[in-house]
Amino acid sequence: MRAEALAELDRKTKPRRSLGQLETLAAQIAAVRGTVAPEPLRPAIVVAAADHGVAAEGVSAYPQEVTRQMLANFASGGAAISVLARSVGADLHVVDAGVLEPFEHPAIRSLRIGSGTANAATGPAMSRAHATEAVERGAELARDLVGAGANVIALGDMGIGNTTSAAALACALLVRAPADMCGPGTGLDAAGVAHKVEVVERMLTTNRPAASDPLATLAAVGGFEIGVLAGVALGAAAEGAVVVLDGFITGASALVAARLEPALGGYLVASHRSPEPGHAPLLATLELEPLLDLGLRLGEASGAALALPLLGAARAILVEMATFEAAGVTDTGR
Amino acid sequence: MRAEALAELDRKTKPRRSLGQLETLAAQIAAVRGTVAPEPLRPAIVVAAADHGVAAEGVSAYPQEVTRQMLANFASGGAAISVLARSVGADLHVVDAGVLEPFEHPAIRSLRIGSGTANAATGPAMSRAHATEAVERGAELARDLVGAGANVIALGDMGIGNTTSAAALACALLVRAPADMCGPGTGLDAAGVAHKVEVVERMLTTNRPAASDPLATLAAVGGFEIGVLAGVALGAAAEGAVVVLDGFITGASALVAARLEPALGGYLVASHRSPEPGHAPLLATLELEPLLDLGLRLGEASGAALALPLLGAARAILVEMATFEAAGVTDTGR
Repeated sequence: MRAEALAELDRKTKPRRSLGQLETLAAQIAAVRGTVAPEPLRPAIVVAAADHGVAAEGVSAYPQEVTRQMLANFASGGAAISVLARSVGADLHVVDAGVLEPFEHPAIRSLRIGSGTANAATGPAMSRAHATEAVERGAELARDLVGAGANVIALGDMGIGNTTSAAALACALLVRAPADMCGPGTGLDAAGVAHKVEVVERMLTTNRPAASDPLATLAAVGGFEIGVLAGVALGAAAEGAVVVLDGFITGASALVAARLEPALGGYLVASHRSPEPGHAPLLATLELEPLLDLGLRLGEASGAALALPLLGAARAILVEMATFEAAGVTDTGR
Repeated sequence: MRAEALAELDRKTKPRRSLGQLETLAAQIAAVRGTVAPEPLRPAIVVAAADHGVAAEGVSAYPQEVTRQMLANFASGGAAISVLARSVGADLHVVDAGVLEPFEHPAIRSLRIGSGTANAATGPAMSRAHATEAVERGAELARDLVGAGANVIALGDMGIGNTTSAAALACALLVRAPADMCGPGTGLDAAGVAHKVEVVERMLTTNRPAASDPLATLAAVGGFEIGVLAGVALGAAAEGAVVVLDGFITGASALVAARLEPALGGYLVASHRSPEPGHAPLLATLELEPLLDLGLRLGEASGAALALPLLGAARAILVEMATFEAAGVTDTGR
């Protein structure tokens, strides 16, 4: 289907492949949707939030209460992703995957796995049963969203301490050193990053997660929102939807998901390249080329939202452009 | 105004500058629009087409008739920019700045300066009077569009042979060698590029344009659409609109315009980085950081159109996001 879409694009009134990565993206959308004439894209953004016990180790520039405060901000429409979702015309679905205290609000969907994870520097973040439940509930949510008409699902995260969880997951699954995977997150200084490296080292030595067992690794050092988002990716792909990743955290979710089901890769679009140092190796492993590189380090699906108009444009090029023949334009085959 | 906008962005519920280049863009939009609360963006895309006498030297992968065929394709809505303008919700204005034979169609605005330029490899492309007229008519068009409500003007080009004109302009105005500024355009092979370098050398030795006189340089080696687009940029900026560049050709137009009025720079947004080798030095001279890097080499404002949703998102972030104070989110000042 990719080859068929690229051949169709070569008949359109433009020099061959002159729309670069937009054409590759159009071909991928065709492949995921199973047609060279995919219907208009209907994007849904899922932002999952949860708390992390490892925040007690002082790994974030922000206090843990901010996770819950940001859920309230999502609910009232004032957060960056609230604004960006409206700006690009996407539905926003905010999920409580397990913040410390439940946050009841009609705009927040509860898929709570627990009241925050345990501190993974001193023991497993969650049980294997909870890790499995997180993935399953995420997959179920994706099926609901596709059932309601979405054909593109964009992933986003919120959770104080979650770059630390994502770094530990990436270290375990990619067999890399913590120093390669830890960065400033939302605003650590050099001393803060050095401390984070030390905490990730403790998370790994305490739990000794096996790279061959992605669910065990998720349970050992992951987070509830990371598990839910892995499930959303798997469920969306299973239903034939395109999955758009945000930055480092959703990349770690996708890595867990791709280790559970390697065929996931073809469904994934990397929206942007994060300045977080672990993101490039993650994208390389997933064989993804990001669309944007704007120095975004917020999370919340902000980069994924910004990339959605590019997906819409890629589909439109494939479906709506005239061919050389139909438009009477000379085709030199270049 | 830029500083005021950045300070306002620092009060929003996100880590400082965590939206990277989107925040810089928001601050620029505030500066151009003269307010930290700019109204919603209303983008108009101007694609100007013209023929180039230098096409007789065999500098393009496409025959000259394609300029006119593509005007017809723009008119009937099947070209890439027709599709992309619809996809991003921008008005498209197609201008005949001087194709070989007039193309009459209600969807095409005639600002014809002549029936194609003369072959700049054997003499000046146009008279100084025509160069001045092109810029003036472009500026007038921009004033009309802003008068009709547009506050963002995106520039695009169509013209077989116009990467050769743009390369010669860039060589003259930046005092660079033709080998640095010539690339494959829409599809030359290595021998084609070598021939193009030789043609640009002849354009420069025949006409000896003076870098200090941008209008004389435009007349010597430029094109009608390049002059009109330089005028559109100047007129749009004078009316307080944001000017979005496409790739190499519109970059050459902006360079001519910025040499006529150095204050133009603050109004320009570089939508994307073109693979054309002359584009990077052009952007560096204009001190512009492109938003996208997708390997686009089509022209027609395709890259500019793809960047428009980023401008809309940048404005929305500045105007619509909640502050830490209003949302009750803890601000650590990071």
